[in-house]
Amino acid sequence: MTEAYRWLDARAPNDLPLLNVAQAAPADPPPDAMRAHMADLVLTDDAAHKYTGNWGLRPVREALADTTARLYGGAVSADQVGLTSGCNQAFVAALASFAEPGDEVILPVPWYFNHAMWCDMAGVTKVPLRCGPDMLPDLSEAASLITSRTRAIVLISPNNPTGAEYPADLLAGFRDLCRAHGIHLILDETYRDFLSTPGAPHDLFTDPDWDEVLIHLYSFSKSFHLTGHRTGALLTSPARLEDAAKFIDTVTICPTPLGQKAALYGLTEMTQWLAGERALILDRRATVARLMPRIEARGWQLAGLGGYFAYLRHPFATDAATVARHLLDTHAILCLPGTMFAPEGDDSARQHLRVAFANADAEGLEDLFERLARVEL
Amino acid sequence: MTEAYRWLDARAPNDLPLLNVAQAAPADPPPDAMRAHMADLVLTDDAAHKYTGNWGLRPVREALADTTARLYGGAVSADQVGLTSGCNQAFVAALASFAEPGDEVILPVPWYFNHAMWCDMAGVTKVPLRCGPDMLPDLSEAASLITSRTRAIVLISPNNPTGAEYPADLLAGFRDLCRAHGIHLILDETYRDFLSTPGAPHDLFTDPDWDEVLIHLYSFSKSFHLTGHRTGALLTSPARLEDAAKFIDTVTICPTPLGQKAALYGLTEMTQWLAGERALILDRRATVARLMPRIEARGWQLAGLGGYFAYLRHPFATDAATVARHLLDTHAILCLPGTMFAPEGDDSARQHLRVAFANADAEGLEDLFERLARVEL
Repeated sequence: MTEAYRWLDARAPNDLPLLNVAQAAPADPPPDAMRAHMADLVLTDDAAHKYTGNWGLRPVREALADTTARLYGGAVSADQVGLTSGCNQAFVAALASFAEPGDEVILPVPWYFNHAMWCDMAGVTKVPLRCGPDMLPDLSEAASLITSRTRAIVLISPNNPTGAEYPADLLAGFRDLCRAHGIHLILDETYRDFLSTPGAPHDLFTDPDWDEVLIHLYSFSKSFHLTGHRTGALLTSPARLEDAAKFIDTVTICPTPLGQKAALYGLTEMTQWLAGERALILDRRATVARLMPRIEARGWQLAGLGGYFAYLRHPFATDAATVARHLLDTHAILCLPGTMFAPEGDDSARQHLRVAFANADAEGLEDLFERLARVEL
Repeated sequence: MTEAYRWLDARAPNDLPLLNVAQAAPADPPPDAMRAHMADLVLTDDAAHKYTGNWGLRPVREALADTTARLYGGAVSADQVGLTSGCNQAFVAALASFAEPGDEVILPVPWYFNHAMWCDMAGVTKVPLRCGPDMLPDLSEAASLITSRTRAIVLISPNNPTGAEYPADLLAGFRDLCRAHGIHLILDETYRDFLSTPGAPHDLFTDPDWDEVLIHLYSFSKSFHLTGHRTGALLTSPARLEDAAKFIDTVTICPTPLGQKAALYGLTEMTQWLAGERALILDRRATVARLMPRIEARGWQLAGLGGYFAYLRHPFATDAATVARHLLDTHAILCLPGTMFAPEGDDSARQHLRVAFANADAEGLEDLFERLARVEL
């Protein structure tokens, strides 16, 4: 991201208004009702200004446990819920609780750059699991990568950057594979509230022993527009939370109570609003699908679509970073090259671009595809 | 802390009201003017809900640079200021930017437990530097502990847990020692706004090359009662901030903009209020000093006094943890044993208790000393 914003600062003057489809977070602040509730907390609730326990306030943990059980089925208790300062921290805290330097973690490629960056910082070896053209990881290929040092497989669904929605049976297969090898399945569902199909995204929580293998990550940033308040969560076993609490204590002590209380308001009072958000984003998703033929005629392909993202295969015989720079400098489109989401030299990544469509309205998307259709390289 | 709160949960029913002198943070929320300002931001400032750069908003970084230069003398620029999700994170990010597993960091004992805990988690060896009866570290002893693996010396002034205010010339001596060995001086000044002497706490910032050796840590939690908003800072070289930004990006992305903007309000609009806070805490400090003779008659001694803390040497032939449990169970006093702030088996720590007096008013302190005078073991 930092690199993309450096490009932005460096770009030549251009008459076209910028189309920013790089940002994987909502452009708008939370809705007015949420803001009014938060302002009231700031003024009247002393606890909104103080430390909480490392994993957050009990009623908020309970509310997320209830919401999770309701959405996915199964039993989830507040003792299995830890609130974190954003979903990145949930990942990092989970990893810190079991991975030592020299351990291995399997990451499907394309991967989320912050997951990869933390593995590097923690001295944990990233083992790339290359996705096929459908942008889904293959179970038997994953199995072949497991060694005695493997500690976890990390999946993201809907995926960042590809948008791929992982089928429930694929997720169950990965859970079984992890269980058979005594390793963790970390499943990041930051964008789950924008899935294209209604109902439970998978049935992993209906397994009574889910917390022995699954580490589920969630974010309040995207669903409730709480980006700046840094509020996420991990769901895992109480014992693992106890292990990881030391990490949280030294790194931030606790997530902010205001963010936590806003999250509680979101979970309990904004169900209807969130359904509207989902409808809006699914509508934009449909617009992307509808507009694709305009650029397919020019050789582009849609490799993945879901959550906030379209993952586009560009038709040019040049690296995605060069294409992205050209899109910015000549067409005022800011998007991210696939190479940011892959190990160096990954051939598939060179051919792809991540377009975060969720903040673009119908007019913006029309404009985007018109500009894309004109690109020559 | 967690352990102390477990004691609290487990204690026998007791008619005495609890005197909690364990908490090293303000018991009160921020003042009404600050809360009104924050509520206004929540309602009207969209940016208060969004990501900022990893190191925070430029105007807030500038304000802390200005405040620091004004207080200490010397030149400090916004490029040398990183805002963090609390001061613990400032420490952790600093260490992550230069220390590898196997490296050594010198920590005066008593040490701050979260510093020690992070070193353990990062695989960094803690080298204890035992303080004398005045609770100050000795420069030549520190020098004798430096090896080829040493990367930093970490000082805290006013100290947590001892309250010791480190003299300016001692700090300058440590800076010179660190510079001579090409290592860092990390100086945590979380409680600096409650120093007993007016004016600059030291002249380290007047050194034009201060940022080559000094890493200064600050917290907005104690000074402006922003505990729950997790807002701290580290001041160091722009190059080191750039190195450490990756850590922040993966761990929290950024401190909350609301906390940052509240900190800005504190720095620019609450100077007078902060002076009042300081006067209040210095008054409580004076009360502690005035009341000491009552328990000195029973064999207690005052080993350190400053910031939020009195460090008391108890007269009993038993371990501080046993004394602390007895104080809680029999006298309803919650304070922390010195053993929480030292390596296992440290003889001096067994003899000491940390009393965080800052939240106790004159009446509470009278009560505390009356109860202490009655302790028999």
